[in-house]
Amino acid sequence: MHITQHTDYALRVLIYLAANTDRLVTIAEVSQRFDISRSHLMKVANQLVREGFVEGLRGKGGGLRLARPAEQIAIGAVVRRMERGMELVECFGHDSNCLLTSNCKLKGVLATALEAFLQSLDRASLADVIEAPQKKLLYFAKPDAPPPARKAARARAAKMPQSAG
Amino acid sequence: MHITQHTDYALRVLIYLAANTDRLVTIAEVSQRFDISRSHLMKVANQLVREGFVEGLRGKGGGLRLARPAEQIAIGAVVRRMERGMELVECFGHDSNCLLTSNCKLKGVLATALEAFLQSLDRASLADVIEAPQKKLLYFAKPDAPPPARKAARARAAKMPQSAG
Repeated sequence: MHITQHTDYALRVLIYLAANTDRLVTIAEVSQRFDISRSHLMKVANQLVREGFVEGLRGKGGGLRLARPAEQIAIGAVVRRMERGMELVECFGHDSNCLLTSNCKLKGVLATALEAFLQSLDRASLADVIEAPQKKLLYFAKPDAPPPARKAARARAAKMPQSAG
Repeated sequence: MHITQHTDYALRVLIYLAANTDRLVTIAEVSQRFDISRSHLMKVANQLVREGFVEGLRGKGGGLRLARPAEQIAIGAVVRRMERGMELVECFGHDSNCLLTSNCKLKGVLATALEAFLQSLDRASLADVIEAPQKKLLYFAKPDAPPPARKAARARAAKMPQSAG
């Protein structure tokens, strides 16, 4: 069972923006920090803007920022809006071939479980997942001259207290 | 978000066996009824046997049957055992590239939601999803001369009362 990469990246962009609320963040910067292709991130960012999670300012000095405080962005809302296919199994779609489709009770059982999953995510906000030390790890005051992404992250991570296990 | 086809097919096999408990069911029959490749079903059935959900009797006149009553098989248990990848996002795996991995709170939030999903599925048994009219639709007394799968299913479905919507 997987969440799509599209939603995964959307969550990373939001987390990064939530850790850097004092300035605009460019797609190039996020691309570098997370080692994700710029074109893929562009699609993710465009949808985040369309869905009202992010504001995008064009032109020189432009960039992305959260459209509302991190406390007001539920992780469940992000997954509901960004996840393109919520068809847990074939029969959730329109072109089901399954013999059972017309009277299947399994579909209802799976739909209830999916709702339980999303409601659990509704209870966590972007602010909840960006508490220290996460926020400190992700805060970059000087975006114009960032060090290589992985190396910097590892160096910062090495300085942070690690949780056991 | 999807459940793998492997798990989807496993649930279909179990539902079919639960509707036909008065006899052994062959893989050829399930393959025909659901229009699923025999080799794929063989892998699914082998794992169902290994996991203790199904008993397989070899040889002429052999076939598959539930290893225990449908009331004692939780849908959640089937999904937990059959679903090969429970890595909701990249960072659940061992080779995560994400900058956030070392201190990520999102991982915990997603893991909690996944558990809510599975616990919801734990509350439904195979018997719950195979109540009439589902069971009647799937019961085939004469497996040796089955009519073409889709046609028979549609004919039976047409005779069943359809739920609104």
